[in-house]
Parts: sequence; structure tokens; C-alpha cells
Amino acid sequence: MVTMSSMGHRRATINDVARAANVSRQTVSNAVNRPDRVAPQTLQRVQLEIDRLAYRPSSAAKSLREQRAGAIGLELDARGGAAANAEIAYPFLSQLSLAARSHRCHVVTFGTDSPAPVTSGYESMVRAHLVDAFVLYGTHHGDPRPQWLTEQGIPFVTFGRVWDDPGFTAWGDVDGRIGTASAVRHVVDQGYRRVAFLGWPEGSAVGDDRYQGWREAASELGVLDDALVARTEQDLPRAQAAAADLLGSLQPGDAVVCVSDMVALGAWQAVVAAGLEPGRDIGLVGFDGTSTAGMFDLTTVVQPLAEIVEHLLTQIDVLLTDGEAPAEGALLAPTLRHAGSTRRR
Amino acid sequence: MVTMSSMGHRRATINDVARAANVSRQTVSNAVNRPDRVAPQTLQRVQLEIDRLAYRPSSAAKSLREQRAGAIGLELDARGGAAANAEIAYPFLSQLSLAARSHRCHVVTFGTDSPAPVTSGYESMVRAHLVDAFVLYGTHHGDPRPQWLTEQGIPFVTFGRVWDDPGFTAWGDVDGRIGTASAVRHVVDQGYRRVAFLGWPEGSAVGDDRYQGWREAASELGVLDDALVARTEQDLPRAQAAAADLLGSLQPGDAVVCVSDMVALGAWQAVVAAGLEPGRDIGLVGFDGTSTAGMFDLTTVVQPLAEIVEHLLTQIDVLLTDGEAPAEGALLAPTLRHAGSTRRR
Repeated sequence: MVTMSSMGHRRATINDVARAANVSRQTVSNAVNRPDRVAPQTLQRVQLEIDRLAYRPSSAAKSLREQRAGAIGLELDARGGAAANAEIAYPFLSQLSLAARSHRCHVVTFGTDSPAPVTSGYESMVRAHLVDAFVLYGTHHGDPRPQWLTEQGIPFVTFGRVWDDPGFTAWGDVDGRIGTASAVRHVVDQGYRRVAFLGWPEGSAVGDDRYQGWREAASELGVLDDALVARTEQDLPRAQAAAADLLGSLQPGDAVVCVSDMVALGAWQAVVAAGLEPGRDIGLVGFDGTSTAGMFDLTTVVQPLAEIVEHLLTQIDVLLTDGEAPAEGALLAPTLRHAGSTRRR
Repeated sequence: MVTMSSMGHRRATINDVARAANVSRQTVSNAVNRPDRVAPQTLQRVQLEIDRLAYRPSSAAKSLREQRAGAIGLELDARGGAAANAEIAYPFLSQLSLAARSHRCHVVTFGTDSPAPVTSGYESMVRAHLVDAFVLYGTHHGDPRPQWLTEQGIPFVTFGRVWDDPGFTAWGDVDGRIGTASAVRHVVDQGYRRVAFLGWPEGSAVGDDRYQGWREAASELGVLDDALVARTEQDLPRAQAAAADLLGSLQPGDAVVCVSDMVALGAWQAVVAAGLEPGRDIGLVGFDGTSTAGMFDLTTVVQPLAEIVEHLLTQIDVLLTDGEAPAEGALLAPTLRHAGSTRRR
């Protein structure tokens, strides 16, 4: 239990109140901003702790809240080639737009069509007071946006970890390790013997995470064979070529866990080109839950978009109420969608 | 030339001024709302005609403009299965978001996850005064949204024709006939002999339009054979099955023009499953310019999204300035993107 003395002279934060009242940060935020949304008994308990701890939402945050645009900004990549992201970006955006309503805000999109300077779109959105905060999508090593937004004091949350800044916590992400680990367990359950991994080149944070899940689960189940790892760019012909090579080390009854649906699609093509049948001969699992996976009847790891979106919107509420980041980011577990490509028949 | 007498007692409209000054509606709109954007000589000419014709933007539109949110609403389908639209919806939205900036507005998205009532999302956006107008996407036979918005007096434009209301003109659309006709001409140029069409079931407005383009061009080039038409739903396994049937009537050196990239992908799979090679043996053309077509090196009809978006944003400017719809909708010509699937080698 948090007491005034254990806190010393530090100002009480939303985290302190949440812990003391044994509720979530969101509930404290609601108790302050939308008491009608909180059950009477809970509201009473939270208000008691607010008084006892002398908790005050930071005045900067409060003044910001009073001038709120009630909107969240999301950058969309409008370069032609970026359409390859559409299958992930579109479901994320539509979920975000849907869930925003129950958080009493809306989503404002803005497009960028040049790779640099990537922050100009953000700057003009902020200058026009169109949004209170941003959701960043597609964070990656060397991404300049998190640091820039932090320096400007602009609230933001990210879908995906900020790989260059482990201290940043306002993120929600799919747990890639759990995803590929569940894929390995599923194919072993289905009776496939050996389990290969077709990944991206080492050094991509997301790809390395997914590789680790394969490695750990394969090791746990006693099927780890480091010779059964191949690497490819996120590109269909290259994935097909890499999978064709990998098939040279495999036999009917083996399976391939792939780092993405696109890579799995390349493997699918390689399997068919070798005169084999996905599922019956070679088990195949993709990652991302795209509609392309659905089209090809491909088992895939489905990103928990609704949960990620809910987490991000809640963090934005808290950031704007209190100015304080959560204690840690949220890794949300994906689910495996079973389909024909892992059915041995 | 429009004269006061030829207009009788009718109030002058933005069209009258545009015609009299020999400029576009957008230029008249700019002359009224953003004179700094108009070249001085043009501005003088337009202002002369505005005075001469006693043109006044409608007061309802003017009052609306003064309270403008400066935003356009766009509905996103957040139902799981709808992700199949992502490859077209995402590039459209990112282009719209990018171009909105130069029209001094922004895009607010909202999500729907139930098929009915489809208008509730629009209603809540309007009630909250979040947007001035909507862009409708995915209009289709029986779409209740255009009539509802018209009845409510809410300005909107559509990407796609309003098939049930030929009198509605505030639309921009891809010219499907030109698209499939150019596909037929291209495959004949490339030396393919017979040109089949793999379409959707009759009765879909977009599909019928694309079929007409195939038919007209094939007839013009003397290669029309009505026996070479097959139909399938927008679904990969069914498209593959329909293409496999169609291949029974074809020989190496023939080509198939498809109603969509997904249908073309089914044909691609059928060609490969028959031991043939797309391009070398059977020419294949898709429609929509999706990233999937790019992945499969598939020649495809690319939608002119930048032009459509510019047209729609201009129409919104005019609707909000003047309350008046354009004389007719805009059919914009797509372009063919040549790739390996129509290379005979």
C-alpha cells in the first residue's frame, strides 16, 4: 500500500492513486474526468485516495485538456510502394477509428509522400491544433519520430515498441515470440515432424523477436535444428527462392513457420512449384493475419488489434490527464488462426 | 457567353460565373474564399463577372462555411472480413489525407463494425460538428447512404458512381471500360491471340462496366468471342476454379483479362496448377493496381487515385462554397501497369 510517508516529498501521481485504490489508471482518469462512467463504490474509493494522497492532475496536462481538440493524429504513408503495408495498416486504422468513439475522441489522418523530413507532417498538425496526441505506427530502428515528439513535448503512443529507447513505455505491441512459439506448438501438435523457420535478415527487431519464439518453442519441444533456418527479404520472389532452397532440406511431413504472411506466401508458391501440397505435404504458418493469408487458406498468427488499440487509447487518456507514462509497455498475445496450410488430411 | 438576359430570373450560380469568366469552378471558389491563391488578372476577371452576374454564394452554404470544421469524414469498415478491401481503401485514404492539406482541410475517419444501420456513424459525426462533408467509398446498388445524406442535407461526394441515382453528379470514379479496353489492346499488341474475360456475376455495376470495356475493344480488334467469358465471385479458390474451367477453352498464346486483381490471382494459380507459366504461356491482366498484383508481377489496371482524390476535394470545396453540384461526374482514365504476366518472352 502506498502511504504519504513512503512517497516522501514526491507529488502523487495517477499511478499512486491507482495502486492505493486498487484500480487501473484508466479508472482514476475516469474518476477525474468522467465520474459518470465509474461505479459509485469505486468512485468513492478512488476519490478517497485522491484526497488522501493530495493527487492533482498536472496543471499543464489540465490546461491542455481544457483546450483539447479531442482528436488523435495518425500518419499514413502515401508513397506508392507503401501499399504493401495496407493489409496491416488498414485494419489497425479502422479498429482505432471504431474504438476512438468510446474514448470520446476521433482520428485525424495525414499523409506523407516523401521519406524526409518525416516530422514535418506532425509539426503542421500540431501547429494547427488539430490533435492532442499521435499514434505512431511502424516504429523501427533509427525512427526519428519518437525523439522529435519527445523533444517537442507532444504526447504520443506507439503501435510497436520504440526499439531505440527502452525507457519509452507508452506502447502496445503484438508479442511476436508468443506468436511464433504458438505456431511451432500447433504444427508439432498436428503431427508435423521437423519445424523450419523462414525469417527476415537478422537485425530487424520485429523479425528477431519472432525468430526467438520459434527457437524457444522448438528447443522446449526437442525439435530445434539450427540448420532449418533460412532468411529472406519481405518480397515474394525472394521468399519463394529462399523457401525453395529450404525445401531441399525438408521432407513431406515437415513444416515451415514464417516471419510474415508475405514470406509464407512465397513458401506456399515454392511448395506448389515443387509439386507438393501445402498442408498435406508441408505445413505452413504465416504471421500478421492478413486477408491474403485468408485468401490462400494459410494458418497465420493474428495480431490482437482490438486489444492493442484499446491499450493505446487508454494510455492517451492517461497521458493527457496526467502527463505521465505507464510503468511499462504492453505486449499483447496474438492468436493462431488455423487453416488448410497446417491440415495434414 | 452567359448574359443576364439568357439567365432570366434564375439566381446566378458558380457555374455561370465560371463559364462567363472562362475559368473552373474551383477558381471561382478560390476567388471568393482564398483570393491570394488566384493570379491577379484572373481574379480581376472573375470578380468582374461576379459583380456583373450579381453572383452570391448561397447564404446557407456561407453560414455553413463560417462554422466550418475544416474536415471531411470517411467511414472505414472495421469488420474483420472487410480487410479484403484494404488494398484499395488504404491507398485511397492515404492519397486523400495527403491531398486534403492543400485544400486546407483534414480527414476524420470513423469506423463501423455492424452492417446496419449504416447511417448511425454519419449521424454522430454530423451531430458532433466534426466534419463539413463526407467522402463515400464503396458505393453500390442498394446503398442507403446517398439518399439518407441527401435527405439530411449533408454535403457529400462519392468515390464511385451512385448507381441508383444517375442524377447525382458529385462523384469521381475510375473509367472501368477504358481500363479493360486498354488491357485487351495491350495483350493483342503483345501478340496474344485470343482474349478471354474472367468477370464477376452479371449485375454488379462495376463488374458490368469492366466487362463492357473488354467486349468493345475485343469487337473493335476483331477478336471478340463470347464463348471466352467466365464468371466468378471475388474469392480466390472460386476464381481459380473458374479460371481452370476457362483454360479448357484456351491454348498457350491466349490471354485472360480479369475483372480484379484477386480474380487475376486465381487465374494465375490455375495457370501454374496446369503446368503453364503466366506471361510465357497465358497472358494475364488484373484490375485495381493492388500491391498483391505487384507481388505476383501481374499486369494490372491502376486506378487514378491522385486524380480522383483531387476531383473529389475540389467538388467538396465547391459544394461548401456554393451548395451546388457539378454538371456531371468525373470518369477518370486508369493506366495499365505492364508486368511479367503479359510478357511472352
